Amino acid sequence: MLHFDLLSTEGHARRGRLRLNHGVVETPIFMPVGTYGTVKGVLPRDLETMGAQIILGNTFHLWMRPGLDVLGTFGGLHRFEGWQRPILTDSGGFQVWSLGKMRKISEEGVRFASPVNGDKLFLTPEVSMQVQTVLNSDIVMQFDECTPYETDGQITTEKAARASMELSLRWARRSKDEFARLENPNALFGIVQGGMFEPLREASLAALVDLDLPGYAIGGVSVGEPKEDMRRIMAHTPHRLPAHKPRYLMGVGTPEDLVEGVHHGVDLFDCVMPTRNARNGHLFTRFGELKIRNARHKADERPLDPTCACHACSHFSRAYLHHLERCGEMLAPMLASIHNLHYYLNLMKEVRAALEEGRFEAFRAQFHADRQRGID
Amino acid sequence: MLHFDLLSTEGHARRGRLRLNHGVVETPIFMPVGTYGTVKGVLPRDLETMGAQIILGNTFHLWMRPGLDVLGTFGGLHRFEGWQRPILTDSGGFQVWSLGKMRKISEEGVRFASPVNGDKLFLTPEVSMQVQTVLNSDIVMQFDECTPYETDGQITTEKAARASMELSLRWARRSKDEFARLENPNALFGIVQGGMFEPLREASLAALVDLDLPGYAIGGVSVGEPKEDMRRIMAHTPHRLPAHKPRYLMGVGTPEDLVEGVHHGVDLFDCVMPTRNARNGHLFTRFGELKIRNARHKADERPLDPTCACHACSHFSRAYLHHLERCGEMLAPMLASIHNLHYYLNLMKEVRAALEEGRFEAFRAQFHADRQRGID
Ligand SMILES: [Zn+2]
Ligand SMILES: [Zn+2]
Repeated sequence: MLHFDLLSTEGHARRGRLRLNHGVVETPIFMPVGTYGTVKGVLPRDLETMGAQIILGNTFHLWMRPGLDVLGTFGGLHRFEGWQRPILTDSGGFQVWSLGKMRKISEEGVRFASPVNGDKLFLTPEVSMQVQTVLNSDIVMQFDECTPYETDGQITTEKAARASMELSLRWARRSKDEFARLENPNALFGIVQGGMFEPLREASLAALVDLDLPGYAIGGVSVGEPKEDMRRIMAHTPHRLPAHKPRYLMGVGTPEDLVEGVHHGVDLFDCVMPTRNARNGHLFTRFGELKIRNARHKADERPLDPTCACHACSHFSRAYLHHLERCGEMLAPMLASIHNLHYYLNLMKEVRAALEEGRFEAFRAQFHADRQRGID
Repeated sequence: MLHFDLLSTEGHARRGRLRLNHGVVETPIFMPVGTYGTVKGVLPRDLETMGAQIILGNTFHLWMRPGLDVLGTFGGLHRFEGWQRPILTDSGGFQVWSLGKMRKISEEGVRFASPVNGDKLFLTPEVSMQVQTVLNSDIVMQFDECTPYETDGQITTEKAARASMELSLRWARRSKDEFARLENPNALFGIVQGGMFEPLREASLAALVDLDLPGYAIGGVSVGEPKEDMRRIMAHTPHRLPAHKPRYLMGVGTPEDLVEGVHHGVDLFDCVMPTRNARNGHLFTRFGELKIRNARHKADERPLDPTCACHACSHFSRAYLHHLERCGEMLAPMLASIHNLHYYLNLMKEVRAALEEGRFEAFRAQFHADRQRGID
C-alpha cells in the first residue's frame, strides 16, 4: 500500500505526505540508514525521539546475515529490529555491484560468492523481490544495475551507460512481475538510471513511467562522480518524474545536497554520512562542520550546536565529547550519531515548515548563508 | 556531608539509607563503574531509568584525562559527565599500583610516569585528596596501598602485608588531615587492608575506627586471590565495622558475591563485571549465564531474560542480540550493558525489598537455587 498526497509546492519543491503499511511519512524526509538491521549506535527509541519516520535496511546484507530463515521467523524486519514505523529496503544491486571482481553480471542476474562464508549465490530481480518480501519492507526497490561513473579510471561511455540503463529497465519489468506474483502488499519503486547523460535519464524515466509504479528513485548518483555532475543530474531528473508520486534521490548527501534536492523536487533522501561522520568525530551544525577531536574544544563548556535540541546538545558539552573521543569511549560515537541524525532530521523538519508557509526559497538562502558562516 | 540511617537488619545483613551532597542512596546498592567519566556504552539517562543511584569515577584516569583544568572549569565531575546523583571516586592507589614496574612506592607516595604522555608524576595522599576535591565526588576514598595477593608468583607474606597495611594507615591519617585542610564538603572513607590475614584486618580496622571516618571500605580483595580467600575475608571483616556507618566492599563481584556480601553486612558494591562481560557477549540472568554469541540463539525469539524488565529485554530478542554481536554492531554492547547493569541494580532492589520484609535469608536461598538452575 502506498498513498501519496501533495500538500503544497513552491517551484519544484514539494511538501507531501506518504501513507505506507507501517505508518505515515511527512515529506521531504531524510531516512537514516540501518544496514544490518540497526542504525549504527542508535537505539530505535532514540530514532523515534529525534523524529525519524522511516529508516533503511540493506537487502543484500540482511540476506547474508541473519538470513531469511531468521527474518522469516520474525515475520520480517520490523519486529526483528524493534522498529514499528516504515522501512525502505534497497534491492541488493548496489552491494553486489560493489563486490567488484567478486561478481559476474549477466542478463539473468548477478553471480557472486558470499563475502560471509564463500557460498556461491545468484541474485536476480526475482530473488531480490523474494528477499524483500520476507523483509516485509514498506518500500521495495527494483533490482537494478548501478551504472558506474568510472571503471579502472575510464569514465563510463554513453554507449555503456545506455546498455546498463536498458538492462536495469528489463530488470524493472521482471521485478514488477515477481512483486505481483508474490502478492507483496507493500510498494515497489522503479529506479531511473542513465549515468551522467540527460538523454539516457529521460529514456529511463519514460520507460519506467510506462510501468506505472507507485514511486520512483534516482539511482547512479553519489557513485564517485564530480560534485557538479551530481548536481547536474539532480537538477535535471527529479522534476521530470510524475508529480503525484514520491521521488527518492538515492544515497545523497550533504546537508547542502538535501536542501538543493528539495529545491529540485526530491521527497526522500538517505545517506550514511551523518552516522559515518559521527563515528569519525565530524559533527554537522547549523553554522558549518565541527571536528570534535580538535584540541580547541578541550575545555569548551558549550554544546556542539547551541541551536540544536538533541539529547547530546541538551545534556553535554563539547569538552565532554572531546574527552570521550580522546579516550576512545563508546559514548562518543553514540552521542555524535544522535546529534548528526537529529541535525539531518531537524533540517528536513525546518524545510517542511518553510514549505508549508511558502517561504522555502528564503529558508534556502538563509540555510546556505548560515552554513557558510562557520561555527565559533 | 554524609548521613546514614540503618532501617532494618536481618543477621548481619542491613537495609540502610545514605544521604550525600548529591542525593539519597538506598542500600544495599551496586555502583556502576564510570572509569573515564562514562559508564561504558550507557547514557546517564539510561542509568537513571534502570535505577542507578550512585556511580564510580576513577581519580587516577580522570586526573590524566581530561585533567584538573577541565574538571575545575566544570566545577567537578557531575556537570562534566551529566550525572547529577551521587558519585564515589577511588583514590588512584589501585591504578598506580597496577602500573607495576612503572611506579616506585615510598613513604611519601608513589612516583610514576604518566601512561598518557610520559610526564613524571607523584601521587601522594595529599595530591589524591586535592584531585578528589576538584572532582567534588560525594564519597572520597583515602589514598592507600593495595596489598597484592602475590608478586612474581610469591604469595605476600604476613610481614609484608603488615608493612603495607601500616603504610596505608599512615596514608589514611594524611588523607584525613588534607581532606580537612581543603574543607572538602563531602565524605571521606577509610580502607581496611591487611591482605588475607584476619589479625591484620582487625588491626587495620581498629586503627581506622579510631580516626572516626564517616564510612569504611574493605580493600585488597578481588586482587587475584582464590575465591575461598576472598569469601573468607568477606565473612570476617564487614560485620566488625561500626554498625552505624556505611560499609563498602571494593571491586566485588559476581551476583553471588553481592548476595553473600549483603549476608555478611556489606552496604555498597562496585565492579566492572556487568559492563565488561556485556562487551564480551556474556549476559547475567536470574537463571544463570547466557553467552549470546552461541549459535543456539540464532533464531530465538525470546528476550535475554524473560523475568527482566530492562529496555533490551522488553524490546529485543536473543536472535537480534546474537545477530548484532555477529555483525560487530555497536548496538550489541549497548544493549548488553543496559541488560547486565539492570540485572545487577534490580538484584539489589530485590535484596532491599527482601530485607524490608524480613525474608532476606529465604530470598538468598531462592537466589542461589535459581542461578544454579541454568537458563533454557
Ligand atoms: Zn545536537
Ligand atoms: Zn534485561
